Amino acid sequence: MPHPLNPALGQTFVPPVMEARRWLEGVAFPPERPLINVSQAAPVDPPPEALRRAIAEAALNDPAAHLYGPVLGLPELRAEVAVQWRAAYGGQIAAAQVAITQGCNQAFCAVMATLAGAGDEVILPAPWYFNHKMWLDMSGVKAVPLATGPGLIPEAAAAARLIGPRTRAIVLVSPNNPGGAEYPAETLAAFRDLARAQGLALIVDETYRDFDSRSGAPHDLFVDPDWDEVLIQLYSFSKAYRLTGHRVGAIVASPARLAEVEKFLDTVAICPNQLGQIAALWGMRNLRDWVAAERAEILARRTAMQAGLAALPGWNMLGCGAYFAYVTHPSPLPAPEFARALVRTAGVLALPGTMFMPTGDQAGARQMRIAFANIDAAGIGALMERLRTLPI
Amino acid sequence: MPHPLNPALGQTFVPPVMEARRWLEGVAFPPERPLINVSQAAPVDPPPEALRRAIAEAALNDPAAHLYGPVLGLPELRAEVAVQWRAAYGGQIAAAQVAITQGCNQAFCAVMATLAGAGDEVILPAPWYFNHKMWLDMSGVKAVPLATGPGLIPEAAAAARLIGPRTRAIVLVSPNNPGGAEYPAETLAAFRDLARAQGLALIVDETYRDFDSRSGAPHDLFVDPDWDEVLIQLYSFSKAYRLTGHRVGAIVASPARLAEVEKFLDTVAICPNQLGQIAALWGMRNLRDWVAAERAEILARRTAMQAGLAALPGWNMLGCGAYFAYVTHPSPLPAPEFARALVRTAGVLALPGTMFMPTGDQAGARQMRIAFANIDAAGIGALMERLRTLPI
Repeated sequence: MPHPLNPALGQTFVPPVMEARRWLEGVAFPPERPLINVSQAAPVDPPPEALRRAIAEAALNDPAAHLYGPVLGLPELRAEVAVQWRAAYGGQIAAAQVAITQGCNQAFCAVMATLAGAGDEVILPAPWYFNHKMWLDMSGVKAVPLATGPGLIPEAAAAARLIGPRTRAIVLVSPNNPGGAEYPAETLAAFRDLARAQGLALIVDETYRDFDSRSGAPHDLFVDPDWDEVLIQLYSFSKAYRLTGHRVGAIVASPARLAEVEKFLDTVAICPNQLGQIAALWGMRNLRDWVAAERAEILARRTAMQAGLAALPGWNMLGCGAYFAYVTHPSPLPAPEFARALVRTAGVLALPGTMFMPTGDQAGARQMRIAFANIDAAGIGALMERLRTLPI
Repeated sequence: MPHPLNPALGQTFVPPVMEARRWLEGVAFPPERPLINVSQAAPVDPPPEALRRAIAEAALNDPAAHLYGPVLGLPELRAEVAVQWRAAYGGQIAAAQVAITQGCNQAFCAVMATLAGAGDEVILPAPWYFNHKMWLDMSGVKAVPLATGPGLIPEAAAAARLIGPRTRAIVLVSPNNPGGAEYPAETLAAFRDLARAQGLALIVDETYRDFDSRSGAPHDLFVDPDWDEVLIQLYSFSKAYRLTGHRVGAIVASPARLAEVEKFLDTVAICPNQLGQIAALWGMRNLRDWVAAERAEILARRTAMQAGLAALPGWNMLGCGAYFAYVTHPSPLPAPEFARALVRTAGVLALPGTMFMPTGDQAGARQMRIAFANIDAAGIGALMERLRTLPI
């Protein structure tokens, strides 16, 4: 432990993906049975060549690509998001209601910093995205877990019972990480109504929206003419355009909220990096068909995942969508030990449910998250074969 | 004001550089007298062509340039910093004591998050760097101002009198922003001894170290075999290699501190962007002579600035170094109003001292920061002429 140490830092957990990476140390993966890594939601291939060329072209010939830009992002990118969002969701969304961040994790931190400080409370459906929990821990904000029902769908009526005088916000992730659930439009509308009635903010993280299996808008929250009084939407360019290494995300919220966000981003980021923003803008303008094909491929993998899990004795699927399947495992071992054993006995790296659940929660010890989008149909077949033949 | 609002956000100020930019709205700058912008410490030209080509080459041909990397940065870049730092400062510095961040502002926030939470105190010499103050405000940490003496140099003995039970750290910036002061090695050693004796962290932000006018190591803090028990150094690649738009900075600290920093960076950043890191590494390996020439040019501008100010009636130089001159102005107007008047009457944008001083401090109202590194010798001449002929 370093000294001095902010106890709020000391008390949160180590980054799960980095911890899981350390489980690989000292384990050999023979060429005939290489590691199957389903621990992180990350494309494993670079973006298409035309996008790489656009980035290279800007690096060579656009001087502004190397210099500071506005704190809230490139005006052209903010405007493009507004235009495409209006088309996708309906309703009125202006460039002044869009901010660009260094990735969607930063979008969450920036928004949450404007909402809640030490001693406040925020409601998160469990299982939750671990980085959301970590930010709340590090800020001294209490994460109040909201148990989810069938299909890992949370209910606004249950959330209502958790609201107290220090509650500031409710956070929903749809399609969900880690659960894969695609929240019904009525669920989101009910949470919006609850948040509005209680004077809370409703944060909807749509990092995985480009891989939603439903056609058309996944909700009608933006059609509400006063949406920005209550709704804060988060988005990531990383998944759709394979730009994880560039760190580009977005916030869609009221201009008044973004004026507060600007203070945080000025201090933590100064501005998003320019090449990543140029890449995201180029992708939005040129890769619509390519993203549609990517989505079709991910949905095919999801189908393969669902079929594979249905045929796997002892495993139960709790949710499956976007990049993730969230499952119960058949081992008598608690999930953290089972996950480590999987590395050694099956050459599979996946995260235990305990990383997504409140400390001490018993359900998490039976659960695993499988980030299947990283592997193709053949890889999913190989994964299923290894899980079927486990020496449990 | 958005609702709900974390009062700690509501109470900090708006980003100064963005606020100053708004002063330009509606003001015309005729071609024969264009705006002289000395508000922000930022190179105005892109990096050299060979570095731009290296970035473009990586964007085209290095798949890893587009994918997630380790939270604490590229191992090769961490190792290169360690090697070059050992050569520059003496002492032992290992790659495990180096972390890469999305810019040096983020390095400060990450380090400070590990040190201080709501209710804690941190000592900052005044004038201070406004983003440091903003982060402390937003975290509920009290910034305790340390008055500086002649040449804007702080004294450890004065700092000792400000230490209380909630004090966690002392922050020094050398060469200083906004003051330009290059802190003597003895000053830094005295602060190190004080921090060690009191169980505090000493943060030394060396963003501008590549433009220090002194030859050789500016301090011997790293020669102390136990330096990492007390010292945390911050660095920026933005200035040396003209990479402001790429957002790459560094932290040099103990591995135990960096394990806590990793929690913050995983949550806020996931990882630094890859192309920026590749650019910084290429710069470190290939641009030593180029940076030396850049330094010579900045030092020449500093000399021109000092001579110009010395000949300017009513203006006094409090400090001058790195990118900045910190001065008192001759106008009866308080600095914020004088700064706005300068835009209209002289076509000059500079930041008032009030942006760098505690609220209500009277000295700040007489002071201005001039970020002269942005303008060449001819520009400095034009600036001096406009200031000389002001209708004050």
